[in-house]
Amino acid sequence: MMSRSRRARDYGIPFGSLEPGPANGITDVKGVMVGQTTLISGDGTLVPGKGPIRTGVTVILPHPGNVFRNKVPAVMHSINGFGKCFGQEQVDEFGEIESPIALTGTMNAARVADALISYGIRENPDIGIRTTTINAVVGECSDQVLNDMQGRHVRDTHVLAAIDNASFGPVEEGAVGAGTGMSCYGFKGGIGTASRKLPHSEDGWTVGMLVLANFGRKEQLTIAGVPVGRMLIEGEAEEIERGSIMFVLATDAPLLDRGLKRLARRCAHGLARTGSISGNTSGDFVIGFSTTESCRKPHGSDPAILQPAVLNDHSRTMDALFQAVVEATEEAIINALFASETMTGRDGNKRVQLPITHVVELLRDSNRLLV
Amino acid sequence: MMSRSRRARDYGIPFGSLEPGPANGITDVKGVMVGQTTLISGDGTLVPGKGPIRTGVTVILPHPGNVFRNKVPAVMHSINGFGKCFGQEQVDEFGEIESPIALTGTMNAARVADALISYGIRENPDIGIRTTTINAVVGECSDQVLNDMQGRHVRDTHVLAAIDNASFGPVEEGAVGAGTGMSCYGFKGGIGTASRKLPHSEDGWTVGMLVLANFGRKEQLTIAGVPVGRMLIEGEAEEIERGSIMFVLATDAPLLDRGLKRLARRCAHGLARTGSISGNTSGDFVIGFSTTESCRKPHGSDPAILQPAVLNDHSRTMDALFQAVVEATEEAIINALFASETMTGRDGNKRVQLPITHVVELLRDSNRLLV
Amino acid sequence: MMSRSRRARDYGIPFGSLEPGPANGITDVKGVMVGQTTLISGDGTLVPGKGPIRTGVTVILPHPGNVFRNKVPAVMHSINGFGKCFGQEQVDEFGEIESPIALTGTMNAARVADALISYGIRENPDIGIRTTTINAVVGECSDQVLNDMQGRHVRDTHVLAAIDNASFGPVEEGAVGAGTGMSCYGFKGGIGTASRKLPHSEDGWTVGMLVLANFGRKEQLTIAGVPVGRMLIEGEAEEIERGSIMFVLATDAPLLDRGLKRLARRCAHGLARTGSISGNTSGDFVIGFSTTESCRKPHGSDPAILQPAVLNDHSRTMDALFQAVVEATEEAIINALFASETMTGRDGNKRVQLPITHVVELLRDSNRLLV
Amino acid sequence: MMSRSRRARDYGIPFGSLEPGPANGITDVKGVMVGQTTLISGDGTLVPGKGPIRTGVTVILPHPGNVFRNKVPAVMHSINGFGKCFGQEQVDEFGEIESPIALTGTMNAARVADALISYGIRENPDIGIRTTTINAVVGECSDQVLNDMQGRHVRDTHVLAAIDNASFGPVEEGAVGAGTGMSCYGFKGGIGTASRKLPHSEDGWTVGMLVLANFGRKEQLTIAGVPVGRMLIEGEAEEIERGSIMFVLATDAPLLDRGLKRLARRCAHGLARTGSISGNTSGDFVIGFSTTESCRKPHGSDPAILQPAVLNDHSRTMDALFQAVVEATEEAIINALFASETMTGRDGNKRVQLPITHVVELLRDSNRLLV
Repeated sequence: MMSRSRRARDYGIPFGSLEPGPANGITDVKGVMVGQTTLISGDGTLVPGKGPIRTGVTVILPHPGNVFRNKVPAVMHSINGFGKCFGQEQVDEFGEIESPIALTGTMNAARVADALISYGIRENPDIGIRTTTINAVVGECSDQVLNDMQGRHVRDTHVLAAIDNASFGPVEEGAVGAGTGMSCYGFKGGIGTASRKLPHSEDGWTVGMLVLANFGRKEQLTIAGVPVGRMLIEGEAEEIERGSIMFVLATDAPLLDRGLKRLARRCAHGLARTGSISGNTSGDFVIGFSTTESCRKPHGSDPAILQPAVLNDHSRTMDALFQAVVEATEEAIINALFASETMTGRDGNKRVQLPITHVVELLRDSNRLLV
Repeated sequence: MMSRSRRARDYGIPFGSLEPGPANGITDVKGVMVGQTTLISGDGTLVPGKGPIRTGVTVILPHPGNVFRNKVPAVMHSINGFGKCFGQEQVDEFGEIESPIALTGTMNAARVADALISYGIRENPDIGIRTTTINAVVGECSDQVLNDMQGRHVRDTHVLAAIDNASFGPVEEGAVGAGTGMSCYGFKGGIGTASRKLPHSEDGWTVGMLVLANFGRKEQLTIAGVPVGRMLIEGEAEEIERGSIMFVLATDAPLLDRGLKRLARRCAHGLARTGSISGNTSGDFVIGFSTTESCRKPHGSDPAILQPAVLNDHSRTMDALFQAVVEATEEAIINALFASETMTGRDGNKRVQLPITHVVELLRDSNRLLV
Repeated sequence: MMSRSRRARDYGIPFGSLEPGPANGITDVKGVMVGQTTLISGDGTLVPGKGPIRTGVTVILPHPGNVFRNKVPAVMHSINGFGKCFGQEQVDEFGEIESPIALTGTMNAARVADALISYGIRENPDIGIRTTTINAVVGECSDQVLNDMQGRHVRDTHVLAAIDNASFGPVEEGAVGAGTGMSCYGFKGGIGTASRKLPHSEDGWTVGMLVLANFGRKEQLTIAGVPVGRMLIEGEAEEIERGSIMFVLATDAPLLDRGLKRLARRCAHGLARTGSISGNTSGDFVIGFSTTESCRKPHGSDPAILQPAVLNDHSRTMDALFQAVVEATEEAIINALFASETMTGRDGNKRVQLPITHVVELLRDSNRLLV
Repeated sequence: MMSRSRRARDYGIPFGSLEPGPANGITDVKGVMVGQTTLISGDGTLVPGKGPIRTGVTVILPHPGNVFRNKVPAVMHSINGFGKCFGQEQVDEFGEIESPIALTGTMNAARVADALISYGIRENPDIGIRTTTINAVVGECSDQVLNDMQGRHVRDTHVLAAIDNASFGPVEEGAVGAGTGMSCYGFKGGIGTASRKLPHSEDGWTVGMLVLANFGRKEQLTIAGVPVGRMLIEGEAEEIERGSIMFVLATDAPLLDRGLKRLARRCAHGLARTGSISGNTSGDFVIGFSTTESCRKPHGSDPAILQPAVLNDHSRTMDALFQAVVEATEEAIINALFASETMTGRDGNKRVQLPITHVVELLRDSNRLLV
């Protein structure tokens, strides 16, 4: 599907002790699909509403079927709420997601939500006529540095294209989809993903993570415990942190909303390992769901009784799942940095790629490489 | 501005013991403005995406100035979260609202949020360029019974018109603005408003309430404690409750977000007095704010220290404010019913007006009228 | 077990449309047991730490077995949090209760929690040695008006006696157990209970409610929609509301914590029907649990997967359950008032019984009696 | 006051970039006092209820005055709620703490809460008579490995002694007070503290942290980014994580409850830096308060209006405060490990001290030491 450069762990960088799944991505959770539309056009001085354009949309489908008819148990969780996460109220109340999950640049968010409604109507022509409306789920980060945000350039067609092109298998990382215009720790940021598969002794569940990484100051960047940010010459040293991070957490572990909420709260731990303090103007949100068939919910009132299989809260597998979330979160963020190539956007604003060679040297000096 | 028919209290119906303000509406809180755009066109069979149209938008401005530059302390609160309330995450985190508040039909919500962003840009051309983005606040209820929801007929121009036409003084109630296509307790529903002014001994603060009433089954309707719904022949007796209610609560009492949250939680008490149980598929949300000057927050980091005057949590005035919220909530809902005239919408669906004469007779039989 | 005077509905007072269970009490939920210890001694001037004593403890057992080994799905919910509800943190996190639920006077609460630990150890000698500790659940209201609170007179033996004497069947109401020293709407308050049994068409589940009623000002009291408080000569007209109400909500409907939370939030609606505004210094808490066998959780990590039967969130039975909660809540509060006889306590402080005959007359004048 | 061994930073271990205050402890926040009572007696086989005893209590006073009469703005926050944090409900509702904060072993918690009530009565003889009751604040961790928990050996006198002996200045760390019987990352755990003082350009506020560290598995332990736990031979490698951590966060920054909540949420980030995933059966709670005079609240209803100076949410100082919390949290935990000496408790159970020399070597090998 795409040529992929080496990812962070290919350099011997350690990210905990659990094994990743085959794609080391959110799509290792069976059934999960990801689609992206990238919008890049224009250069030079910003003409508000016109360009240059450096934005896009990333869509995560919890399963290949009709999500409105076959809802998944889900949660949203705010680590720091300077941002938007459309759909949170109903997700909180019913513990379920019934639409694809879309990530995008902040000012596109309402248009992307409207596009998800268009998609919902396309797939379910009875919406708003003979049945209830659809609860669109959209997360966002600000692509202000590189993009003409006021233009809100992501439209229905872009969102529908991302949904229609969504696929299993490896996820493209870096400056693609919603990640197109993002910045992270003073470098180019974007989409990153990772996964963990529990050993059979821990039931073999998979945890998948996809992040839209757009936060942090250079001096905070920590990789594998080493504060490389302060040691790097490259990158942008900003006075104030701006930006946000969106986490999409998928698992096939049999969890309902309360269990998922507990997993979601561990994203903060993985985030912290990369040096973040969740800055004041950061919108750090987690959208989490389980793909377990028995935990899904039909649309409508039948059957009256559901019989989900649910992981015992007191099972020691909970700790393994927590660890999987922390490790996958940390690695997905660093993957985003490794994959995001230098980009110049509006007004000549530029975000350079993380200097990988330099970073790897610094980790070697700290005896932190596995190879 | 408009001819107004008699309101509920004009018939001698009692709504507690506190006095209303001069307009008995949310605009009794000084500085608050309300604007509405009503969209009614077409008749007959639903052509999804075309019509008939029975929808609109209602906008509440917390003060006449630039709200983005001069934010008000605010909260959102969910009584039952089957619905959307865009902007909740950031309101929770920062305890402030920085955009006009818009109410509309459910499927318009994303477009209305996008329109508020357009408005934000118009008033603040630096948004998303040299300063942060704007957190649009939108609440919604479903106008499914009467309106072509899939058409999402409320556009930028309608929202901007509502904002530009917003005014002080009496608020038009009933099937106007966001209330155009609503149903309530099996009758025609819509916009209602009320207020309470505390006596001087309780500091004289005003509490204003505006509701978008679109919930409940006929048999539940209770007015002034009398279960009139079961006694009425008129109205629609539905098997399942559908619909929602949005509350906008304004006050000039000096409260920050925690105090406002406490007031917001009393809307459930006022709602319950009208017979509601907050049905399963109801989105019952409160958006509350204070207009107190000293509690406002500038946009940006200056000054570093704010000095709000804040009502002492232990003041007995808290109880008076709670009572004001409960009473104004109850009355605003009944006002919505009294003002909403019979309407026929898509597919010939019809919602009749509450039979006021009959209701008044029933209350007289129960010795509940003051006159 | 006891002689019972006529309860509110025996006078023809209406409390909604659903039918109560056979005992019209929380014990109509199969397996639920209630035990109470009442402490009354001394008269006259308060000698802090000595008496007079007007206090006690009421214990609710979710099922007759070992609750620590066989935990029930549960929630706590705060309507207004001026008070304590020990154990809330762990109930929130794991959605379960593992100890009997105890209600008592405010200043006894820590001692009662300690007594529940003693009980836990007695039944589970491995607690704190080879297994985890126990999460004691205690709610409280202030019996300050009548009781020597500083004395904290409820001890281990009183709590253990209440547990050991707990029984199925009708629950004694009024000035007993935790209700001994309570006040409500300016009259004598205490323990009240009620239940609702859904019709077979709604699956036949039972909702049981027990309240410890100790809140409100006389002028607020509303019965069956009639504001009788303002019309009564009797009772105490206080300037400031003091006091609280604890709700214990039991059901055999198959609900996990999220579903129970939704039911718990409807207690505010039932409370509001009696005239309350949830005053500033009121601690209004709900403790709710389900007795469904398949939703229980074992102590420890086996089995790893549980298979609860869970009511579909989208089932229309949810609305019937909400209605049951609202109706049982309203009736339990009025039952507490009807059953609580006049008591004189410390310093000659006196709370008179609700003047039932007068109240019934007022309701008859309003055409509100069924008989 | 005590002889103090070298603390972690004395070995050149780095903990971020901000400077600590003079005592590098919570008492660097002016006015904060800490008192501790340590209970150690008996050896050998556990006789439940008798001993051996390895427990205690640690008390934090927000200011030297009467806290009931002069309440401080405060919050509680749960990172993982398998545990208790008495008083949370009222702290949530009113955003204030009105009693000393006590930490202790889990099963002592109710007795310690009762002792705080005794203290409250001693200082305020009108409590429960002419004024409201007191909301005691108690956090706990399990000292199950070393202590006879069932004995609940901490009594009134021990708590009162800790309060009466509380002092300014350096805080004793390690196996003292509540920390006496604790374990952390497979080693001896206990009390640790640290602080950060912002530079004058960031307003010079101080953040103080005190932890009761009793969590984690050896293999998780990470110091200054180096996963030393896996490299150490010493310590206990347990299969399951048990235990908890309590954080007490103090600051003189002018913050009300919402601002404090935001700081409290950053404790998870500091905790994560030490390797924790917040295990399933961990009770990870934060109790936070501000000492700012203008933000304090009187007891009672006068004055009706308060005028706190409050840090602007949009001030860039918020980020500096967040960083201070993260750094102080990380350092306080490592300080607890460095200070906690090997202890043998009930049944010969033993927790060895962190092998400091070995750890320092490992950090040197990773180029992580500053000296």
